[in-house]
Amino acid sequence: MSRGKFITFEGGEGAGKSTQVGRLVARLQPLLNERAVVRTREPGGSKGAEVIRNLVVATEAEPWSAMTETLLMYAARSDHLENTIRPALAAGDWVVCDRFADSSRAYQGAGGGVAPGFIEQVDAAVVGDDQPDLTLVFDLPVEVGLERAFGRGLFETRFESKGLAFHQRLREGFLKIVETNPARCVRIDAVGDLDTVEERVWRAVQERLL
Amino acid sequence: MSRGKFITFEGGEGAGKSTQVGRLVARLQPLLNERAVVRTREPGGSKGAEVIRNLVVATEAEPWSAMTETLLMYAARSDHLENTIRPALAAGDWVVCDRFADSSRAYQGAGGGVAPGFIEQVDAAVVGDDQPDLTLVFDLPVEVGLERAFGRGLFETRFESKGLAFHQRLREGFLKIVETNPARCVRIDAVGDLDTVEERVWRAVQERLL
Repeated sequence: MSRGKFITFEGGEGAGKSTQVGRLVARLQPLLNERAVVRTREPGGSKGAEVIRNLVVATEAEPWSAMTETLLMYAARSDHLENTIRPALAAGDWVVCDRFADSSRAYQGAGGGVAPGFIEQVDAAVVGDDQPDLTLVFDLPVEVGLERAFGRGLFETRFESKGLAFHQRLREGFLKIVETNPARCVRIDAVGDLDTVEERVWRAVQERLL
Repeated sequence: MSRGKFITFEGGEGAGKSTQVGRLVARLQPLLNERAVVRTREPGGSKGAEVIRNLVVATEAEPWSAMTETLLMYAARSDHLENTIRPALAAGDWVVCDRFADSSRAYQGAGGGVAPGFIEQVDAAVVGDDQPDLTLVFDLPVEVGLERAFGRGLFETRFESKGLAFHQRLREGFLKIVETNPARCVRIDAVGDLDTVEERVWRAVQERLL
């Protein structure tokens, strides 16, 4: 059996990625016959990576610098690749992953100020040739995403803690990734109802991979 | 006050590093007047780094690949530098650290097969200009070190789990670090009683830093 395909979903908060990952997996599975579709996510996605996820995500206090966070994220990614993604692709299965390396580029790089060149050095060593075949970058105005993610009340709390400027840099970071990687990435307009966005995702997958 | 000095202790298992760290700190403190001597260790040495240490050291199962371990170690090192080492050196204090970046070079690099060039890329980004002023590399025959570290019974168990060949690569890795960094590193013959080894350490510190 030939190697499977590797699809990643990327984008800021409240873009509706997780819902659409589920819809794509449900739509792909019947078409792939004996191949499985493995749904996974980052940070996490393997036993070791989930342990690292708890260090990074579960604390409210943000005790890690962007540099430390970059290294923790790539440590989790390394474990995830070794134990989940690479074995699945080698077996011919497709992998659909909610967030992957572009989130490091956007959050710790564009958002957190870690040098892009350093992230690429680590990415080359950890991800290497196992780059995604297709990356869907969910894009929507920052205010819309934050309101969707947190609701009006929580939005205001979070707004103060991280700052709208951070989320603006994040959005620009993701859009720059699409611009500089046109063969791998497709921008998905995430404004619209679930069915509309699902069709945009499906069109991209059909055009690029089916 | 001028910047403090940064001393690291390195070497394989059972070399007696921790005991000698304690002796050096006790001997340095009276000479440094108002400067403190901060004793620390890796992995660990800061609140966040100790949490990461628990992920790496506390499990017997060795669930991490050498690559994942490299990234976890440098994540811990990044936190340790930011929260313990750099503030102390900036305040003029001396820092004496039980293991540091050379342990990544030897254990994950020479021992575990991670490309030395990759470790140097990560080191340049994380440690940068804060390289140790003096590194004491404790050296002794592998069999002697392992017997000291684990005792005869445990030695045999560990011997089978990791292999004498691994520890031999480790020793050679450390010796190569001394050879290629003569301005920073001194090999300490770790065979001999505690007082004898203490004198060897003290002579090196006097010659290089006092």
